[in-house]
Amino acid sequence: MHVRIISLTSDFGMRDSYVAQMKAVILRIYPQARIIDVSHGIQKFNVRMGAFVLSSAVPYFPDGTVHVAIVDPEVGGNRRPIVVRTKHGFLVGPDNGVLMMAAEAQGILCIREIANPQFTLPAISHTFHGRDIFAPVAAHLAKGAAYEKLGPEIADVVKPTFAAPRKVGDSLLGEVVHVDDFGNIITNIREEEIVKLKLKGEAKIKVDSSFLKLKLCRTYADVERSQFLSLIGSHGYFEVAMNQGNAAKELGVRAGDKVRVSCT
Amino acid sequence: MHVRIISLTSDFGMRDSYVAQMKAVILRIYPQARIIDVSHGIQKFNVRMGAFVLSSAVPYFPDGTVHVAIVDPEVGGNRRPIVVRTKHGFLVGPDNGVLMMAAEAQGILCIREIANPQFTLPAISHTFHGRDIFAPVAAHLAKGAAYEKLGPEIADVVKPTFAAPRKVGDSLLGEVVHVDDFGNIITNIREEEIVKLKLKGEAKIKVDSSFLKLKLCRTYADVERSQFLSLIGSHGYFEVAMNQGNAAKELGVRAGDKVRVSCT
Amino acid sequence: MHVRIISLTSDFGMRDSYVAQMKAVILRIYPQARIIDVSHGIQKFNVRMGAFVLSSAVPYFPDGTVHVAIVDPEVGGNRRPIVVRTKHGFLVGPDNGVLMMAAEAQGILCIREIANPQFTLPAISHTFHGRDIFAPVAAHLAKGAAYEKLGPEIADVVKPTFAAPRKVGDSLLGEVVHVDDFGNIITNIREEEIVKLKLKGEAKIKVDSSFLKLKLCRTYADVERSQFLSLIGSHGYFEVAMNQGNAAKELGVRAGDKVRVSCT
Repeated sequence: MHVRIISLTSDFGMRDSYVAQMKAVILRIYPQARIIDVSHGIQKFNVRMGAFVLSSAVPYFPDGTVHVAIVDPEVGGNRRPIVVRTKHGFLVGPDNGVLMMAAEAQGILCIREIANPQFTLPAISHTFHGRDIFAPVAAHLAKGAAYEKLGPEIADVVKPTFAAPRKVGDSLLGEVVHVDDFGNIITNIREEEIVKLKLKGEAKIKVDSSFLKLKLCRTYADVERSQFLSLIGSHGYFEVAMNQGNAAKELGVRAGDKVRVSCT
Repeated sequence: MHVRIISLTSDFGMRDSYVAQMKAVILRIYPQARIIDVSHGIQKFNVRMGAFVLSSAVPYFPDGTVHVAIVDPEVGGNRRPIVVRTKHGFLVGPDNGVLMMAAEAQGILCIREIANPQFTLPAISHTFHGRDIFAPVAAHLAKGAAYEKLGPEIADVVKPTFAAPRKVGDSLLGEVVHVDDFGNIITNIREEEIVKLKLKGEAKIKVDSSFLKLKLCRTYADVERSQFLSLIGSHGYFEVAMNQGNAAKELGVRAGDKVRVSCT
Repeated sequence: MHVRIISLTSDFGMRDSYVAQMKAVILRIYPQARIIDVSHGIQKFNVRMGAFVLSSAVPYFPDGTVHVAIVDPEVGGNRRPIVVRTKHGFLVGPDNGVLMMAAEAQGILCIREIANPQFTLPAISHTFHGRDIFAPVAAHLAKGAAYEKLGPEIADVVKPTFAAPRKVGDSLLGEVVHVDDFGNIITNIREEEIVKLKLKGEAKIKVDSSFLKLKLCRTYADVERSQFLSLIGSHGYFEVAMNQGNAAKELGVRAGDKVRVSCT
């Protein structure tokens, strides 16, 4: 059989050994696994950032990949551990929305609650389900275990509360879903919606409390260094950026801030 | 033969190429090696933090794993390079205590000083034994080289100076061994010792100069958001934490601070 | 065929999924690839730092390795995507100098512009050539694709503007090429040039605006804790450091600062 990839996304950081504990558990069960880190730098407890970062990576992985994503403020509480089967692979993590942005884009086939103790470690801590539940489940699935045996099918899962962008008059109202490490301000407005605005010349953009008039560019280097610009980023979303600078820091913008885009 | 895992722990950080140089040296000697990073975010020169983080990860790895740990303020000086053989694998690094917390928990079979030049790079720098000694030794051991040929057996190794927790009256006196990336305050007091205290309701806890009365919880979500709690963490040690917050930052606590726990 | 290694160097950071997107693209094309991160912590847009960090790692990798390095402020602009074939492997990235310090040390055989769409993703974004051009090209080369088919041979590539150190009277004038994560101040002055100075006792060193008189030591532990020293680092360059301290922070020194070394 082909070797399967397991991807890992979390808010665990890289200073502690939490990520390595998960990898060790995976390799005990499935020694051939290819393990790829998506990010362990998700802001602590920020489920929406985890959902966005995961969904930006998932489409590039081969079919059959098992994606584990853990941003889990309710670990040990009532939230359920789940596995989503999509048209292209599996998503493993807590039922708090972190998986669902990626899952919906991939095409959901089935969602199951993890209930079969054969797929988890024998002793489950109350505080580290990444190691004790999600890593072993991912390893067993990648190794070829039957998805149907994981636990009961469920229908009512938690979805992340990204407000869909709205058209109000000739303006698009959206929000900042992510500020990346370069300071690029990534919104929830997709390329298609920007196309429909039929921008000529510059767009009027309000981000948080800042007003900008910016051309829609192809790339950062289309403007002079330290100049603002707008563009469709490599993820397919409308983005406000600064050539060789940090737009979010300059404007004081953070994830969750409101965005308005309209023709001038 | 089964492919062997080599784990890496250091205070090298991830900005420079030091870790990659070690991996490149390993793959030259043993191209099939599975290399897993435990952490390269150990505080610079903090041997105790390295010892704790390493020991928290080692039990989850398969038998036969070769663990390399380098927090090495005396590199190029008199401290010896050693390999500890345990009941479950090998630990490779400087003789300054960084290996010994994990080694003792795994069961020490033998300790040898690295003295055989066949196991190291031909030219050994005075400042980067990770690349020139420890990485090649780990690669050779993982590939199947005879442990006995490494160098002479030794008995008197350096151990990390974690004060063992003490019982004084009906209080336990311990210390903070690690503050993790979430700000959880991890002590050197094990679950068994807390059980013996027979806490009813809340425990009186003094951490550094702060006094707290906290229930022993199962998990973070057992209290309201931003509330303090105490629990046995996933590593098996008594821990003071804050639900969805950073307990260490709130209390100004750092590794090495004193902890006192008693019944109310 | 032997499994090939692909190394990755970038200024992408580890919080976002950009690096994972590249790895996913590589594994789609060449599922057996061994992928090793050199660093993703290059200062944003700092081509010289990228060039230095890459060149410090490359010599340790096995022959045949494909190195991808992306510090790319002009992405989507006029700079060309190139692959350098050296005596020991391939270097893939933008034509802005980031590859050339490593390339020259390895021995350049040929440089080609990437022009063949069979080696890239079908849709190329204007902002993320790491994923759309460089990762797939590296995967195809590692998998055995013919280098000659990549695109036309070119001769005039951009080189990084490190001033070579100069001898003025009995002084060496150089500059700081990198400050590592320990705060070690690494210069562009090679061991051979220091040897020619025939230092007896201490050297007079001016770094930025600080004057120091320092012995040339073998290793950090040759001086007391928190004392400055000079030495030839593990990379072969002259370095100013502090035993168990951060020399660059103490002296306020940054990459690009001037250095002067002479006999006392």
